[in-house]
Amino acid sequence: MTTAETTLVEELLAGKHQALARVITKIENRTPGYREIVSQLYEHTGNAEVIGITGSPGAGKSTLVDKMAKTYRDRGDTVGVVAIDPSSPFSGGAVLGDRIRMASNVGDMDVFFRSMSARGNLGGLSTATADAVKALDAFGKDHIIVETVGAGQNEIDIVRAADTVAVLVPPSSGDGVQMLKAGILEIGDVFVVNKADLDGADRTVQELREMIEMSGGSMTVGGGHHGFDTVEVDVGEEAEEWTPSVVETVATDGEGVENLLETLADHHGYMARTGELERKARGRIANEIRTLLRDDAAGIASDELDRRGGIESFVDRVQAGETNPYDIADDVLGDLRECVEGGGR
Amino acid sequence: MTTAETTLVEELLAGKHQALARVITKIENRTPGYREIVSQLYEHTGNAEVIGITGSPGAGKSTLVDKMAKTYRDRGDTVGVVAIDPSSPFSGGAVLGDRIRMASNVGDMDVFFRSMSARGNLGGLSTATADAVKALDAFGKDHIIVETVGAGQNEIDIVRAADTVAVLVPPSSGDGVQMLKAGILEIGDVFVVNKADLDGADRTVQELREMIEMSGGSMTVGGGHHGFDTVEVDVGEEAEEWTPSVVETVATDGEGVENLLETLADHHGYMARTGELERKARGRIANEIRTLLRDDAAGIASDELDRRGGIESFVDRVQAGETNPYDIADDVLGDLRECVEGGGR
Repeated sequence: MTTAETTLVEELLAGKHQALARVITKIENRTPGYREIVSQLYEHTGNAEVIGITGSPGAGKSTLVDKMAKTYRDRGDTVGVVAIDPSSPFSGGAVLGDRIRMASNVGDMDVFFRSMSARGNLGGLSTATADAVKALDAFGKDHIIVETVGAGQNEIDIVRAADTVAVLVPPSSGDGVQMLKAGILEIGDVFVVNKADLDGADRTVQELREMIEMSGGSMTVGGGHHGFDTVEVDVGEEAEEWTPSVVETVATDGEGVENLLETLADHHGYMARTGELERKARGRIANEIRTLLRDDAAGIASDELDRRGGIESFVDRVQAGETNPYDIADDVLGDLRECVEGGGR
Repeated sequence: MTTAETTLVEELLAGKHQALARVITKIENRTPGYREIVSQLYEHTGNAEVIGITGSPGAGKSTLVDKMAKTYRDRGDTVGVVAIDPSSPFSGGAVLGDRIRMASNVGDMDVFFRSMSARGNLGGLSTATADAVKALDAFGKDHIIVETVGAGQNEIDIVRAADTVAVLVPPSSGDGVQMLKAGILEIGDVFVVNKADLDGADRTVQELREMIEMSGGSMTVGGGHHGFDTVEVDVGEEAEEWTPSVVETVATDGEGVENLLETLADHHGYMARTGELERKARGRIANEIRTLLRDDAAGIASDELDRRGGIESFVDRVQAGETNPYDIADDVLGDLRECVEGGGR
C-alpha cells in the first residue's frame, strides 16, 4: 500500500464520501492498488443489508430504486446504490442518464449513487460489483441496492452479491414465461409487479403466482397496506422455508414501496434466523476466491503466452495447419502444471 | 488417443452420422479424450458456411431454422444445426422439445440436428459450441446453423462462432430498442423480421431501419422476391462495406426464406471478397487459444487450492478475519507466478 492508498482507506472508513467515490472509481477501472484497498476494507464489511434488483428494461427499475432509497432515507437509514448495465459490452459505458438520476435525492449524500459499466471486461463485472458493495459496506451504508438490467447469466452472477433478490416484472408483458426460461424464477426472493395501476397487472400477478406454485412453493401476494389484495397460501412446511412473495407497486407515486421494503426486511430476517445469511456469505466468499484465482491464473497464462512470442504467432501456426488451440494450451501450460505437480513450493 | 478415439475420428471423417453424434456428445459432456478428438478434427475444418441465429424467445427461430434447413436440402446442400439454450443454467438441460423438432426433416440425416445445454458450465458453452461446429465442419456439412436464444453476453459469445449472424425480431415487439441496449445491433449482419404477415411488422422494419441508420450504415430492406417492398439506401462508401440488411419472412409457410438464404450468401461473399472471413477466422482462433488457456489455468489454480486444504478452509479463515480473497489468490498463485517469471522452463 502506498501512503495515498492508506489515507484513502482511512478517509473512507471515517465516512468521507469523496474517498468512497474514489475507491469505487479505482475498483471500476482496476487502477493498480485497488486490490490492496479492497483487501484492507474486507474486515470492515458484513453489516449492510444488500438487495439486488433486476428486471427487463422498461420495468421501472430506476424509478423504483429512487423511491426505495428515498423511503429508507425518510426512516433515517443510509443507502448506497450501484447500478450495473452488463448488457452493453459494445457501447463501452454505463447509461449516462443514470448518473443524473436520483434527482429526488440530489444533495443528499447519504444516498450514494454510482453506475458501473462493463468497460469491455464483462467477466470481471461481477467481481467489480462485489468489490463496490464491499466499499459501501465498509463505509457503513445501512442498505445497499445493486440494480442490474436484464436476466442473463451475467445479471444472475451480479445479483449473487445480494442477500435478497427482487425481480421486477412489468404488467401484462408476457415476460413471465420468458423469465422462467431465463432461470430468473430461481433467483427471485421477491417479485415486484411495478406499474400495478396498468391493465394487465392482475394477469401478471396471476402468472407469477402460477409459476411459483408450479415450482413447489406457497406464495404471498402482498401490498395490502396500499389497497391491493393480500392472499396468503400456507403449505404447512415443518422447517421454515421462504416462498417468493409477489408485491405490487406504483413506483411513480411511491405506492406499495413501504410494503416492498417490509417484505425485503422479512426476507432478511428469515435469512438471518435460518442461518441462510451465513451460508450465503460463505458461498459468496468461496465464489470470490474461485473467481480471483481463475482471473489471476488466466493472467499468468497470458503472460506466458506473450513470453513465447504472443498470440498472433500461434494463430499463424494454427492457420498453417501445424498445431491447434488444444495442443497450444497443453504446451503453454505444461510447465506451469509441472511446477505445481512437482511440488514447486 | 485411444484406439476407440482414433476409430471415431476416422468414422466421422468418413461421413458416418453416428460417429458425428458420438463426438458431439463427448464435446458436450467433456468426456475425457474429447480434446484429443477435436485436435485431430481441426485440420479438416474451414470449409463450411457458419451462420449464427439469435433472437428473443417467441420470435419463431425454431420454425425458421427448420425451413432454412429444408431449403438448403432442396438445393442438394447438407446442413448441420446446433441449438443452444444458454439461458437455462438452473434447469440443467436443453429444451426437450428441441430434440423432437425438425419434424419436416426427420429421416433425412443430411440435416443433422443437435441441441446443447449449459450443464452448469455456462462459461464453457461457447467453447463447446465452437467445438461442435468444428465436428460438423470436419464432417463436411455445407451449412452449419448455430441457433441460440436471447441476446446476452453468452449468446453474443456463442454466435461469434459464426461467419454471419442473423438476428430475429418479432414484429411490433418493442424489442428493437431493447436489443440496441443489449448490443445486439452491433453483432447482426442480417435482421430478420419474422411473422411479417402480422400487424406491426412494418413498424418493426421501420424501427430497425432507423437503428441501422443511426449507427451510421446504409440499409437494404429485402424480400422483394416474395412480394415485400425492396428499399435500398446507398450512402456511397468508397471501400466495400456491409450494411446490415432487414429481411422479412413468414417462416410458417416458408415465405421469404429463399431471399434470406440469398442475403446470407451475399454476406458470406462480401466477407470472402474483403478478407473479413480470414480476419474473423484469425480472431476466432485467437479467442479459442485464450479461452482454453484461461480455463486450463483456472484448473491448475483450482488443483493448487485443493492441494492446500480446499476452499472451505480458506472460507473459514476469511470469516475469522485472518485473510481475504485477494490475499489468498496472491498466496496460492505466488509460486506459479514465480515459476513463470523465474524461467521455469
